[in-house]
Amino acid sequence: MKIGILFGAKSFEHEISVVSAIALKKILNSQIVYIFCDYNRDFYLIPTEGINSKQFSSGAYKKEKKLELKQGGFYQKTFAGQKLVSLDCVLNLIHGGDGEDGKIASLLDFFHVPYIGPRVEASVLSYNKLYTKMYAKELGVKVLPYEVIHKNTERKLTNISFPCIIKPSRLGSSIGVSIVKTSEELDYALDVAFEFDNQVLVEPFMAGISEYNLAGCKCENEFVFSIVEEPQKSEILDFDKKYLDFSRTQRVFEANLTQEMIYNLQETFKKIYTNLFEGSLIRCDFFVYENEVYLNEINPVPGSMANYLFEDFESVLLKLSKNLPTQQKIICEYRYINSIQAAKGK
Amino acid sequence: MKIGILFGAKSFEHEISVVSAIALKKILNSQIVYIFCDYNRDFYLIPTEGINSKQFSSGAYKKEKKLELKQGGFYQKTFAGQKLVSLDCVLNLIHGGDGEDGKIASLLDFFHVPYIGPRVEASVLSYNKLYTKMYAKELGVKVLPYEVIHKNTERKLTNISFPCIIKPSRLGSSIGVSIVKTSEELDYALDVAFEFDNQVLVEPFMAGISEYNLAGCKCENEFVFSIVEEPQKSEILDFDKKYLDFSRTQRVFEANLTQEMIYNLQETFKKIYTNLFEGSLIRCDFFVYENEVYLNEINPVPGSMANYLFEDFESVLLKLSKNLPTQQKIICEYRYINSIQAAKGK
Repeated sequence: MKIGILFGAKSFEHEISVVSAIALKKILNSQIVYIFCDYNRDFYLIPTEGINSKQFSSGAYKKEKKLELKQGGFYQKTFAGQKLVSLDCVLNLIHGGDGEDGKIASLLDFFHVPYIGPRVEASVLSYNKLYTKMYAKELGVKVLPYEVIHKNTERKLTNISFPCIIKPSRLGSSIGVSIVKTSEELDYALDVAFEFDNQVLVEPFMAGISEYNLAGCKCENEFVFSIVEEPQKSEILDFDKKYLDFSRTQRVFEANLTQEMIYNLQETFKKIYTNLFEGSLIRCDFFVYENEVYLNEINPVPGSMANYLFEDFESVLLKLSKNLPTQQKIICEYRYINSIQAAKGK
Repeated sequence: MKIGILFGAKSFEHEISVVSAIALKKILNSQIVYIFCDYNRDFYLIPTEGINSKQFSSGAYKKEKKLELKQGGFYQKTFAGQKLVSLDCVLNLIHGGDGEDGKIASLLDFFHVPYIGPRVEASVLSYNKLYTKMYAKELGVKVLPYEVIHKNTERKLTNISFPCIIKPSRLGSSIGVSIVKTSEELDYALDVAFEFDNQVLVEPFMAGISEYNLAGCKCENEFVFSIVEEPQKSEILDFDKKYLDFSRTQRVFEANLTQEMIYNLQETFKKIYTNLFEGSLIRCDFFVYENEVYLNEINPVPGSMANYLFEDFESVLLKLSKNLPTQQKIICEYRYINSIQAAKGK
C-alpha cells in the first residue's frame, strides 16, 4: 500500500500540517509518498527519506520535483513528457484552510483521485463552527449556546454573559481563541479573532465542564472507534501546546469514564458521522456537563490523524482506504439535446 | 471585458448548462470565451462563433483545443509550450453537480482564477436542500415543514401527510421531483428520487401556495434586485418545461404584488444572501402563504443567470465582476518551525 500524504497548503495551519505529516513517518510502515503543497499552492514531490521541517521553512523544497494535478492524479515532468506519481490513495493531511474547507476534497474528487478525508459537504459543515452547530442541532445533538458577531457590526453580546469564549468561526488549532472575563477584554479578543475570520462565535465559558475527544471512522458500515481521551489543559489549550498535539505519536491514557458514558459518546459520534463523513477519519471533541453530551467541534483532519488514540492506527487507516465512497455515476446521453435536434429534423 | 463562460461538467444538469451557455450569447455584448467541461471533466476552448448544442452531443467539441487548469487560469498547449487563455473573469454557468456543489468554486479559488459564482460554503448550503433549510432557520427565515428519508432506511412519513412533494436533496431543475397523493405512489416516487440522491426531502404539497422568484446580487454593499416573477406552472414544473426556462432570453412580466410584499421578499433575500453569497448572482425561489414569506430554494447558478428578470442584465454582471470577494491573505512565515529550530540551535 502506497499512501500519498498531502500536506501544507495556503492555510494558517500550514506549519501544523508539516509537523503532522512528518510525525506520521514514525507511525506508518506503509510506503509513504509525500506531496507538499506550498503557500502558493504549487505541489512538490518530497523524498520520504530525509524529510524535515527545515526543508520547508528554508524553501529548500523548491529544488524537488514539481507536480501537476490532472485527471487521474499528480504528474511529474519527465524528459519524454510526464509521468503519473504512483500511489494507491491520498491522505488529506492539510489542516485548516484548503484542507478542511472543502477545496482539497473538491480538487481530488474533480480529478478522480481516491483519498481519505472529508468530502466537500463534510468539510464545509465541520470547518465553519456555526454550520457545525446548525448541523448538530438538526440531528438532535446538543451544543452549547452561542451567538455570532460579524466584523463591522455592533460588538454586543445579547444572550451570552461573561466569562465567555471568542472563536473565529473558521479556524482550528485554537488560533485566535480567547477567554473573555470583562467587557473591556471583549473588544481586544474580537480584534484578535477578526484577524482570522470576519465571523466570530461567542460561547459561554463553563469552568466545571469536562472535555472528551473521540476519533473514529466507518468501514463496511461498522464504526471503528479510538479510546476516549480527556485532553490535558490549563484553562484552554494555547497554540503552542496544541502544536505539540500535532506531533504526538505516543499513545495516551484512556479517560476514566463509565461504560455508559463511553456508549453515549460513541452514539453521539455515530449521529454526527452518518454518511456525511464517509471516507474520513474524524475526531469529535465533546463536552460533558451534568452528565449530558454536547458537541464542541468536529476535526475532519485531526492533528497527526489522532493516531495516538488508536491501538493499531495503521490497520484502521488501511481498512478505511478500502472503504472510500465512490462518486455518483452520470451517463453522458444528451437525451434532451438529441430529442430537440430530432424534432427540428437536424 | 472578456467573460469566460464555464459550462457543462459531470452533472445531471449538464445539458441544461449547455443550453444556458448558448442562450447567453444572445444576451451579452461583452466578449465571451467559452470553456466547456465535458462529462470526463476535461476542459475545451470552444470558438464563440458557431457554438451550437449539437457540437457537444455529437462529440465534435473534442476537435477543439484542450485546456488545463493551473495556477492563474486555463492554459492551452502551443508549439513552444503553453499559453494562458486571456479572460478577465470566469462566469460559473455549470448547473447542478460540480458547478453548484462547491467543486468548481474550489477549483477556481485554489487556482486563483477570479469568478462570478457561489463560493464553496455558499455552494454546499444551497445545493443540498436540507442544508438550505438549516441555514434559513438559523437566520430566522421561514421554510415549509419537511422530513428527510435516507436510502435503505424505513420509508415512512412521520410528520408530513399527503399530498406531499418528494425531492432529491441535491438536485435542481425539478429532476427526480414528484407529487405524491397516496401511500401507493410514495414508494415509486422514492425509487425515482433515490436514482439521483441517497437523501430525499419530503414537504407538504400546498395547493393554494404562491411561488415567486427574485434574483439579485450585492455590489459595493448595495443590493441589485431583479423584478419579482411569478413562475408559470401547471401543478409543478416538469423537467421539459424547466428546460425551456434555461434557454430564456425574453423578459418576463412582473408579478402583481403590493410594494409591501416586494419589500418583504427583498428583505428575506438580503437575510439569505448576507456575506455568504458574495460574488454570485443568485435566484431565490419563495413561497407566500397567508401573507408569510417562506424560502423554497436558492439557485446559486440560476438558469441562463435569470437574465430575463433584469432590465439591464449585462451591466449587473459587469458590476458584479468588479466586486468579487478576495481570498484571505496568509503570509508564509514559518514562525513556529523557525523558533523550534532556533531553540535546537540549528
